[in-house]
Amino acid sequence: MREIVTILFDDFETLDVFGPIEILGRLKEYFDPQFYSLAGGTITSSHKVPIVTRPISELQESSYILFIPGGIGTRKLVKDEAFIQVLSTLAGKAEFILTVCTGSGLFAKTGLLSGKRATSNKKAFAWVRSLQQDVNWVQKARWTVDGNIYTSAGVSAGMDMTLQFVADILGYNVAKQQSIEIEYDWKETPSWDPFADLYE
Amino acid sequence: MREIVTILFDDFETLDVFGPIEILGRLKEYFDPQFYSLAGGTITSSHKVPIVTRPISELQESSYILFIPGGIGTRKLVKDEAFIQVLSTLAGKAEFILTVCTGSGLFAKTGLLSGKRATSNKKAFAWVRSLQQDVNWVQKARWTVDGNIYTSAGVSAGMDMTLQFVADILGYNVAKQQSIEIEYDWKETPSWDPFADLYE
Repeated sequence: MREIVTILFDDFETLDVFGPIEILGRLKEYFDPQFYSLAGGTITSSHKVPIVTRPISELQESSYILFIPGGIGTRKLVKDEAFIQVLSTLAGKAEFILTVCTGSGLFAKTGLLSGKRATSNKKAFAWVRSLQQDVNWVQKARWTVDGNIYTSAGVSAGMDMTLQFVADILGYNVAKQQSIEIEYDWKETPSWDPFADLYE
Repeated sequence: MREIVTILFDDFETLDVFGPIEILGRLKEYFDPQFYSLAGGTITSSHKVPIVTRPISELQESSYILFIPGGIGTRKLVKDEAFIQVLSTLAGKAEFILTVCTGSGLFAKTGLLSGKRATSNKKAFAWVRSLQQDVNWVQKARWTVDGNIYTSAGVSAGMDMTLQFVADILGYNVAKQQSIEIEYDWKETPSWDPFADLYE
């Protein structure tokens, strides 16, 4: 059983979080989704969804999957050195790190993405790239994998990346079965990215 | 501004709710997502997502969009006459009614779907059909529209239905723009339903 350490903050993007959590949460024998924020309490997405979170200080597991969503709330957090330091410490103990949308920009500020392949939201790509230029930013990709770090393009791309992650650790058939049960048209290759071309 | 009256219950399906809420919630000038449950308090999805809800008694609006998700929690609720009565009363005042996945089975128990076109989760279709046989159940459809009632197939199909709903009331271009911003491959025709064939 692997704990999913989901890091929430006000004005996170709703589907960035709950697309992947739908998929991981269905696999109850393998994953345990938990929701954290810096101070705990209710955190509200930019679409007014109020989530009950635990303070990061309550995290007990010595190994987990770190999950970092994006959203408009990242605009402020990339300048918050205390928050970035917490992310950096959490990432150091993570077995895998998954980011969705501008979550990769937030994570890049730790320096732990430097020299690695990563992608992000396509509309916000220039901004994300400007945050940390020594990352190997891949503009046209639905998702990327580099070692134990998975990053996805904007919002719904997090589902395709998560299915790839499930395929990598539990096998293709498990991922395919989940995509069928949620009636999702899984994009099985990261080269599928028509949105990249809209903003070049 | 239209309030989205989202009805939550324990063991709702996470993405049934937050796919549509992502889309509606982005259109801040038009929609106001709110989360209710019978008694209020924290409601937890079957994937362990804890949401803060208001009790239905606090609902003030005289006109709203009623949004009913599905999930394993519906198995118990279809037999809960008090809950079905509340749904029926809420539906009577709704401008539009949107259901996702087995939410259509729950709503069918009010009798307000009888004689109307509706669809549901494809894996659970036989069960849903058995709940209320005088509904015009359409097995192969990504979503259906009948008057002011929109129903969708399982889980991720709720996003395609919601984009259709947005197109119907705000225009195709608004819906298309939202699908691009969330980098979603919108299935624009309800006849796209490869999952229906898997369970026939």
